[in-house]
Parts: sequence; C-alpha cells; structure tokens
Amino acid sequence: MLPTTLRWEGPAAGGALVLVDQTQLPGATVELRCTTVAEAVDAIRRLAVRGAPAIGCAAAYATCLALAEDLPPPSREAPPRRQSAAVLRACDELAASRPTAVNLFWALGRMRGVVERWERDCEARGGAGGDDAASAEFAERLLAEARAIHAEDREMCAAIGRHGADALAELPEGANLLTHCNAGALATGGAGTALAVIYELARRGKRPHVWVDETRPLMQGARLTAWELMRSGVDCTVICDSMAAAVMHSGRVDAAIVGADRIAANGDAANKIGTYGVAVLAAAHDVPFYVAAPTSTFDLSLADGAAIPIEERAGEEITHGCGRQTAPAGARTYNPAFDVTPARLIHGIVTERGVIEPVERERVAAVVATAAAR
Amino acid sequence: MLPTTLRWEGPAAGGALVLVDQTQLPGATVELRCTTVAEAVDAIRRLAVRGAPAIGCAAAYATCLALAEDLPPPSREAPPRRQSAAVLRACDELAASRPTAVNLFWALGRMRGVVERWERDCEARGGAGGDDAASAEFAERLLAEARAIHAEDREMCAAIGRHGADALAELPEGANLLTHCNAGALATGGAGTALAVIYELARRGKRPHVWVDETRPLMQGARLTAWELMRSGVDCTVICDSMAAAVMHSGRVDAAIVGADRIAANGDAANKIGTYGVAVLAAAHDVPFYVAAPTSTFDLSLADGAAIPIEERAGEEITHGCGRQTAPAGARTYNPAFDVTPARLIHGIVTERGVIEPVERERVAAVVATAAAR
Repeated sequence: MLPTTLRWEGPAAGGALVLVDQTQLPGATVELRCTTVAEAVDAIRRLAVRGAPAIGCAAAYATCLALAEDLPPPSREAPPRRQSAAVLRACDELAASRPTAVNLFWALGRMRGVVERWERDCEARGGAGGDDAASAEFAERLLAEARAIHAEDREMCAAIGRHGADALAELPEGANLLTHCNAGALATGGAGTALAVIYELARRGKRPHVWVDETRPLMQGARLTAWELMRSGVDCTVICDSMAAAVMHSGRVDAAIVGADRIAANGDAANKIGTYGVAVLAAAHDVPFYVAAPTSTFDLSLADGAAIPIEERAGEEITHGCGRQTAPAGARTYNPAFDVTPARLIHGIVTERGVIEPVERERVAAVVATAAAR
Repeated sequence: MLPTTLRWEGPAAGGALVLVDQTQLPGATVELRCTTVAEAVDAIRRLAVRGAPAIGCAAAYATCLALAEDLPPPSREAPPRRQSAAVLRACDELAASRPTAVNLFWALGRMRGVVERWERDCEARGGAGGDDAASAEFAERLLAEARAIHAEDREMCAAIGRHGADALAELPEGANLLTHCNAGALATGGAGTALAVIYELARRGKRPHVWVDETRPLMQGARLTAWELMRSGVDCTVICDSMAAAVMHSGRVDAAIVGADRIAANGDAANKIGTYGVAVLAAAHDVPFYVAAPTSTFDLSLADGAAIPIEERAGEEITHGCGRQTAPAGARTYNPAFDVTPARLIHGIVTERGVIEPVERERVAAVVATAAAR
C-alpha cells in the first residue's frame, strides 16, 4: 500500500535513480528518472524528492550517476583517481542542494568513505583500478553502499514505528493524532518516521485518526501525507495549519508527532516551518508532542538548535505556491523552510534505538553514541 | 489611498449597492453591482464583501434593494404593508447569509427599526403610504439609515485608530506588528479596525512594519491586507500562518492586533480561524495581543465565547482554494471559518469608545452599555 518513493534501476554503471515526482502529487503519480548528478541535484532542490531520510537515500544513489556521466576532458590523472574525483565532486554538488537536513551530509559521508576505501585498495594493488573490470567494481561498491543505506533506512523506519507505537500504547482505540508536513513513506526509504508510528498503531488495531496540517507553503501535509494515509486506509482529516489550535482546544488531539531534519546535541529539533508553532500549541493544551527521527538526523557537533542553518526559499512559494497569485505583485515575503523546536517542548524523540524521554543532552548522547558505535 | 470598499449608487429606489469584489483581489480590482437582494446575499456568502463591519454596511444598503425588485403577485395587503414585508423579508434573507459576525444582525436590527417606525407613521397618517410619494419617502428613510450606519462606521474606524495608536504609543519607531486576516478598509466602511490602528501609527510618523499572516484558506491576509497596506505605503511582509511562531520567537514582533466578528459579554472574541493560535503564540512569547472592534461587534446576550456560532465552510476552500487541487480527491476536511480567543489571552480590546483593558466582564459592560445608551 505504501508508495516506493525511490529506487535504483539498471546496472551499477549506467543505471538510473527513479523517484516519484512529489511535486506532482496528489494530482498525478509520475516517475522521474535521473541519469545525471545534475538531474538528481535539481530533483532534491525543487523538492521532487524531500524528507530528510529520503534525501539521504537519493543522494547516496545519485553518487553512482557520476561514473556513467560523460568523462571530463582527458587529464593527467590516472583513471581511478579521475573516477574518484568525479564521485567526490558529485558528493559536493549534492551536499549543496539543501542546507538543513543533516541526513544528506551523513549519507554523503558514507559514500565518501567508499571512495576512500576504494582509493586505498587501488593503491594497495599498486595503482590498479583504471581498467574496465576495476571500474565496474568501483561502481558496484558505490551502489552496494547506497543500497545498504536504503535498506537500513527501511529497517530504521520499522523500528521507529515499533518504538513509537509502544510509547503511545496507552492511547485509546480511535485516538486522534496530529502531524505536520510529511514524515511518511514519501519522506524515507521505508514506511516513514512519524507516520511509521501511525502505521504501526493501525497495524496493531488501534484505528488512529490523523489531523493532517496542510503545511504551507508547499502543502506536503495535504498533498503527500493525506495521500499516503488514504492509500493505506488510515482515517485522516486535512486542516489548514491555522486550525490546529482550535482543534487542540476542542480536546480532539491526543498526541502530536512529527519528523525532523536535524537535531542538535541537546535535543532541539529543526523540522518543517510551522512545527515549532505546533509544539507551542501542544504545550499550551497539554498535548504530548513527539519527534520521530533516525539517529542519522542528530548532529552532535551542534550544542543546540540555534546553530542549525535554516534554508530560506523563494518568495514565489508563498505568493504563487498553489498555482494562482495570492499576494500583490511586489509583496515582500519571508519564507524560512524550517524552524527549530526547543527540547523542552518535546515529550520524546522516537529513534530506531528507542525513545529519548525526557529529552536531555545526556540521554541524546547515550542513544546516538550507541547507534554510532554499532 | 484606501479603497472604497462599498457604496450606494443612484437613487434610493432603483439604485445599486456597488462593492469591490474581494474574491478578485489582488489580481484585479473589479466592481460588483448588486441590484437585487439575492445578489447581495450571494456577494456576502461567497465573501465578495467580508469583514464584520463591512458586512453590516452592505446588508443595510441591500435592504434598500428590496423595494425596487419586482413586486410579488398582487396580494390583499395594502401597498405600504407589502413594501414593509418585502424589506423585512430581505432582512431575513440577509441575516441567513453568514452566521458568526454579529454586526450583520446589529445593522439589520437598525433597518428593521426603520420599517417599524415607517409602519407606525403610516398608521398615524391613517394607513397612507401606498402612493408614489410615500414609497419614495420609505426608500429615502431606508437609504438614510444605511448611509448613517456607513458614516458611523467610518467615524468608528477613525476613533479605533486613535485609541489603538494611543495604547501602542510606547512602541518604538519602526515597531513590528503582526496581524491575521484582514481587519482593514476592505473589512469596514472606513479605514478598518486593526489596520486603522496601524494607519494611525503610520500617520503619527511611527513607520510601523507589519507581518501579514496570509490567512488560509482564503488568503485574506496575503490578498487583501498586503494589498491595502502596500497601497497605503505601510511596510509589510507576507508570511504563511505557520511562520508566525518562528517570527515571534526571533523577537521581531512587538504586538499583535486583529479584528473580531463577535465578542461575548466576558470579552471572548470570535475572529478568523487561526486567530486563537496567534493569541496562544503571543502569550507564549510575551507579545501583547490586541483585538480591535466596534461596540457593535459585542453580543452581550452571550455569557462567553462557547455560545458563539462558528460557521463551517465548504472543504473545497481547503482542497482547491488557491486554484489548484492541493489534497487528494475525496480527502476529508474540517473548515471552521472562525475560532474563539478567550479573554484571558487578550491584552486589550480597542473600541471606538476606548480600550477595554484588562478584558473583564464588568469593563466590557461599562464600555458597551455606554455606547448603546448614546
């Protein structure tokens, strides 16, 4: 029932990254074939693929595209070094596509690791690596790592679903959850993060109902979350972001759960713009507010959320976002794509290793360090 | 610089209610001529004219249209009674156009008063009133009352502007205000309520900057408030509703000010959906939150906000509101047009008689009773 958000098609060298073009949903389900790094960068930048874990998976696969592209003009570099350089250049280009989600950099770090190991192995073999067989081996190694990242992502989603459903086990049957943006199958390589929890509650027979914030300006809630929940038979109601407060006030929200794009060492979490407002409202209405994200979303190099870079996007997303001009020509806009929810407003962070609750620096370190040491 | 939101054109009998069609803004400035009550009801229902005070003015003028319409089939009623009945029927039809804003009922109550006085006068004259001269007199009396309501509305706006600017006199030059929906010239017969305060601050040289919540689903903030602020040379920035929290968190909001559609005896205020959320966020960020509304917006028959009827509108406003389908076909929606902000979250209510602060039942009674007794 869940959509296949992204996949690799064809051989390691000469294959394609195939994405569901999320800018077309829910009107049309169109697949986008990326055969060059530039196409993949463009797809990430214009949100054809989005969601922190999905961006990581897509970028990992996209590094494989570097090998099949037209080679640069003949250089003095030996072929293996030239191929490594092409992949590292692809990593740089992909890293520049979006600034906030840290899973992107984490996945590219793993792909850079493949390049380093490959170069070491080539040197150990006495500089070999330029022949066709060696090229094929490099391509296979890159694709294998991308596939591993993707497979781990699926496992991670399932584990987050289980831990989150355990944390919410006390909720009554038919409980009302509220979510913002899309932290579902379309945002990951698996069943999602926040939505994986909801899918698992549904699987356990809890028949949850989900209030779906439409999530302006790009409507990922209305367009994507409602689409995948409806496909999966989960009861849901779309509301404008501005209605969440009134719905909470009416007592019809038992818990709020969202994803995250980067989480600092103290648990402050960056997520889609509007998440912070939901967290403040949840606190004001005694609604527990959960974040669900893999440990790869944590950036322990940042002491707190103030250091998380926040992407600002074009004003046209606000003034022309839905297909019609909705603000006067020349109107000034402010369009941050993310905001930061302070740890004190987060009841728990659901990771694939368990729930961090209460959200404190020491508990974050314990869970994330455990994951890194695996 | 401010737009003329509505006006009467032509003679009392046979004239037209001319409105700026607000559904077309900001793309086109189109005037809508209503020559029948049904056209006026439709204009109010589909928000071609909106904003509690403007709806009141429009409805008052629209009762004048009843006299010029095709007369019903010959009845046994004498002409004066038949004309009175036509106007009272118009009042009923107009009253059914929208349920939340109380100014509508207040204005129609005044027009019903004209009918009552006219009937009494006809009886005193021995049942006269059916001839052409008398018909013309009735039409003139109706139009005179509508014009009085409109003129008082203009005065009311100016007075609210002065009282509000006095209340905000401590704000520094270049202060940042945040508003939701449109409580401006387009929502009234004058300069507005919340925006009248901002226009007055600008007139006093305070150079305010306004954060304009776009106000989903119908975008009255982005489409209307930004449009009239820009026309008037007031600095403003359009944001999605979901961005208000992050902007407040960044310390860039000195005060929030909004209009109201109905205020209960204890000061609980119904206004455009999303207002309650802004008020909760303002409280969480120590931002003073003001409501600006004329005393005609108070409904002292309601003990508190729980009794205010909240209009629910079609789900298509959410799923197709901006011209493009933004949610899957068949998606369930919830679309309340208003929410209620409890008095405890309101720093002050700016009326044409002064500022109610703190917002308490006794102070509300004192100010509104004074106005009613004038």
